Amino acid sequence: MEPPYLLFLGDVGDQLAAKTASGIVHWRPERCFGQLRLPGCRADLGIPDRSIEEARAAGVRTLVIGVANAGGILAESWIDSIREAILAGMDVASGLHRKLADIPELAELAAERGVALHDVRHPTRSFSTGNGRRRSGRRLLTVGTDCSCGKMYTALAIEREMRARGMKATFRATGQTGILIAGDGVSIDAVVADFISGAVEWLTPANDADHWDIVEGQGSLFHPAFAGVSLGLLHGAQADALVLCHEPTRRHMRGLPHQPLPDIEECMDLNLRAARLTNPDVRFVGLSVNSSALPAAEREAMFEELRRITGLPVVDPFATGVGPIVDALS
Amino acid sequence: MEPPYLLFLGDVGDQLAAKTASGIVHWRPERCFGQLRLPGCRADLGIPDRSIEEARAAGVRTLVIGVANAGGILAESWIDSIREAILAGMDVASGLHRKLADIPELAELAAERGVALHDVRHPTRSFSTGNGRRRSGRRLLTVGTDCSCGKMYTALAIEREMRARGMKATFRATGQTGILIAGDGVSIDAVVADFISGAVEWLTPANDADHWDIVEGQGSLFHPAFAGVSLGLLHGAQADALVLCHEPTRRHMRGLPHQPLPDIEECMDLNLRAARLTNPDVRFVGLSVNSSALPAAEREAMFEELRRITGLPVVDPFATGVGPIVDALS
Repeated sequence: MEPPYLLFLGDVGDQLAAKTASGIVHWRPERCFGQLRLPGCRADLGIPDRSIEEARAAGVRTLVIGVANAGGILAESWIDSIREAILAGMDVASGLHRKLADIPELAELAAERGVALHDVRHPTRSFSTGNGRRRSGRRLLTVGTDCSCGKMYTALAIEREMRARGMKATFRATGQTGILIAGDGVSIDAVVADFISGAVEWLTPANDADHWDIVEGQGSLFHPAFAGVSLGLLHGAQADALVLCHEPTRRHMRGLPHQPLPDIEECMDLNLRAARLTNPDVRFVGLSVNSSALPAAEREAMFEELRRITGLPVVDPFATGVGPIVDALS
Repeated sequence: MEPPYLLFLGDVGDQLAAKTASGIVHWRPERCFGQLRLPGCRADLGIPDRSIEEARAAGVRTLVIGVANAGGILAESWIDSIREAILAGMDVASGLHRKLADIPELAELAAERGVALHDVRHPTRSFSTGNGRRRSGRRLLTVGTDCSCGKMYTALAIEREMRARGMKATFRATGQTGILIAGDGVSIDAVVADFISGAVEWLTPANDADHWDIVEGQGSLFHPAFAGVSLGLLHGAQADALVLCHEPTRRHMRGLPHQPLPDIEECMDLNLRAARLTNPDVRFVGLSVNSSALPAAEREAMFEELRRITGLPVVDPFATGVGPIVDALS
């Protein structure tokens, strides 16, 4: 995806629906020219409102659909804006389940104008099967006790901290939000099952000996729906360093009231054991805890307890930053 | 896939290329009306040669392409036979990578004649994500130290033995050869990664309390290319019983000279640990060893050693049958 971007919010009803666009503004502000909002839109990214005409004049390359829409339907009013952007010569990127390329009118228009439609949730290239051979360069992977517990945020925070210290680091996106933020990546849960680890090997290729790929994890080895994806990711990344991400107030695995969360130590142990298949030297370098739902008074006690159990740095990437984890990598 | 079948061998150069068709004849002889061979064919299934005209007259419902072809190309001479079968009103089933449905001439002809093209390597339905909820009925899954070490053969042998004893058992196919033998199933490594365990839950639904699904395993938790598939299969099957399949003369993981085979006990332990996520009562009930490449003198000593280590029945399903494993399930 080529920057600069115009971030399209449509007419979404709340700020949460614009989470992806907010992520792009937070992590890649230098790429964001402005936001495009339709009448009735209740989200605001805190950046200037711009029209497609203004964006075109300023050299914006890509309209990014940075919002979720109930049911994945593209409203006619959204299609009008997308059409206008294509006519203005912009590429369009979307993380929606419904593919832009499957809307004949948009596909034809894009072909005519010679612009690209990036449906980032749907991999378009094919991959080889994995081979597990060691590659040069170093890799860190965020793994989780569950889905949606901060793996992407943690990886992006580590990349930012490493770069601020002058280290070579590249965030490697494996989900649609991460891809829209990074501008590239592979939506790993949409790859054909045979090629999970092969796709991750492709995404995190051989590199300089002092370069770190910071790989966004997916799911959890303990989630009965998605553990296969998590394991393929673990093997394909052949991580040198793992960071465990955890949301301490969750009572059960996401979406499955009958499925308990794993014990922290058991979760770390199983991840290490599986990861050793492709990197015998793998180790955990820290825990990243999303403590936003915890009373402040409880947070420090919990973090101390986790430090005692694991002997590792424990951070909240949002509240306290990831410095202590990056210290362990330097 | 509707029986009876006419098994198409084309003009393949050796018996090995007809392995799938041989499997169908071995495991489902009652469904096989005959074989159709073209000039130059060097394989023989040991069943009568029949023409499409003879098959049509006898009520054959499906032409099964039971062979592999170098490069996955369909020779023009094969297409002629497939066309003739469609014109005779037969469905056509294929496990080739190249889809019949992608050959416009065949797709159009099939639509005209109202017959089905079964490209069993390519799932056509969509699945839900897995949920891990316990289902009624019992399930056995064959798992492996590696790929291609007897998981399908073992599962089919167990199904046959159980049925011979009057037990309720259904082989559940997860790969294209198994699907062509069983007549249905899901090619699990071709499913989108997010839906691996969900597809297996669909394939092995709730059933009578005394009914066994005998689920064909895929890959190995220790194969860096395919472990994600193996784990999703393990979680989705929520197996009560596991059988470890092993090829003792292999020196490294299939296709990967740098990747050692796992230790038998470690392999069993990791499979159990992962399987407990969706079935805490899972246990191993036996080992199935493909000893065809072992000198007979060595076999018994090796089997005795494995029995001593594991405390379980150890069989070669081809040489000695799977009786002792089924004894453990009765």
